[in-house]
Amino acid sequence: MKLVRFSLPAENTIRSGYLEGHSIHEFVGDMFSGREKTGRSFELEQVSLRAPLVPNHIIGIGKNFVPDHTEKPPVPELPILFFKPLTAVVGPGDAVILPQGTAEIKFESELAVIIGRTAKDIHPTQADDVIFGFTVANDLGAFNYFHPEGHWTIGKAFDTFCPLGPVIETDFNYRTARIQAAVNGVMKQDATMEHIITPIDEMIAYISRFMTLNPGDVILTGTPAGSDYVRHGDVVDCWIEGIGRLSNPVQTNSQ
Amino acid sequence: MKLVRFSLPAENTIRSGYLEGHSIHEFVGDMFSGREKTGRSFELEQVSLRAPLVPNHIIGIGKNFVPDHTEKPPVPELPILFFKPLTAVVGPGDAVILPQGTAEIKFESELAVIIGRTAKDIHPTQADDVIFGFTVANDLGAFNYFHPEGHWTIGKAFDTFCPLGPVIETDFNYRTARIQAAVNGVMKQDATMEHIITPIDEMIAYISRFMTLNPGDVILTGTPAGSDYVRHGDVVDCWIEGIGRLSNPVQTNSQ
Repeated sequence: MKLVRFSLPAENTIRSGYLEGHSIHEFVGDMFSGREKTGRSFELEQVSLRAPLVPNHIIGIGKNFVPDHTEKPPVPELPILFFKPLTAVVGPGDAVILPQGTAEIKFESELAVIIGRTAKDIHPTQADDVIFGFTVANDLGAFNYFHPEGHWTIGKAFDTFCPLGPVIETDFNYRTARIQAAVNGVMKQDATMEHIITPIDEMIAYISRFMTLNPGDVILTGTPAGSDYVRHGDVVDCWIEGIGRLSNPVQTNSQ
Repeated sequence: MKLVRFSLPAENTIRSGYLEGHSIHEFVGDMFSGREKTGRSFELEQVSLRAPLVPNHIIGIGKNFVPDHTEKPPVPELPILFFKPLTAVVGPGDAVILPQGTAEIKFESELAVIIGRTAKDIHPTQADDVIFGFTVANDLGAFNYFHPEGHWTIGKAFDTFCPLGPVIETDFNYRTARIQAAVNGVMKQDATMEHIITPIDEMIAYISRFMTLNPGDVILTGTPAGSDYVRHGDVVDCWIEGIGRLSNPVQTNSQ
């Protein structure tokens, strides 16, 4: 099942729907627990897709992929985690706005896990039960705002630095996911879960040890090798087979 | 004006109200824009106070107070900031739960700013206009979960690690605030804003440069010297004259 949020032309309302082929069947109610079909359908070409959810929290993991799976280090006892604020979220096609005077901004294509059930102190074998679905994320970061003492908070938190979409796919095998990205059509990232260090089930279990996970929490599971700088005028495509392609233009904040 | 959230005995509903003396005058509607009195009043002694708001984001600043104001360093170009998740919030009297096997947990008494208006790229002189009010925070941290590369995320994020309360005071001069704390009645912290490094107005303006601030965003403005370890059975009191006293027992998670 593919879930989307969308707007009709000349309308600010954000609607929800099931995507089937090129048709969107609208529903109302809570995405996680109370979806009711309205009976209205729209063609994908008629609408603007929006970020597929308003997250509850966005939790990212750093340094979680190796370039070569033959040299994989052990799962770290203490992963590098960070939060991104909800103000960073934009949707498919929305502009990523580079703050003025900030040259060192990188994109990062990532598989985003959407939590669907409350989870505390779970075991990795229970992780699949609390996952609602998956989307594609571009976890942008401004490296010159990473604190010299190691805090990534500000660099990861700029408005528009978390494009999400285009859909939430609930039927997806994350263990064989392939994460790809291109800038202006030039391939930059292409890797599978063979390159991940902390596997997704262990990551979810780990996070649930310190904080209660709730429906709408989004976990950005790390980016493979190849993340690169972006500049005004670039178009960044991040995609995962079986979920979809998230494409965002990059602009400076000079207007 | 003092705003509270509270529950009646044997009731799970969380109500909102104005505190006047020992009376609470209930209101319904959005705290920031749409309060309507219900006409019902309750005595403070009859109710349980809860955290005075459900924050939108919680943004903390690190290393922001000096023990001696004569040796104050300049305002850093890049402050140490971190997010705490909303799952960390508890209210007055609620237990702070120490995770098992985690010995190095410190309390930190702090003035918490509640943002009341959307703010982006503001100047420090505009900060007062976007502040809704103030409460007291205890910004707990588990130091053995601070990452060796500098990331504080996990250590700051445990459930119950952000007591807030007892009230939101909208009439308060933060420039002369005095922040105090005691553990089991023994004074641990007592300092004024003379000891702050990045002043609150500059902090708000700085944050608004990278992320849009919105009503309900909470900024923990840093803790003075004297923060100390807490153990099972301790009671931590954090207080600020003119706002109130936030008292929380500390328990291990062994049950």
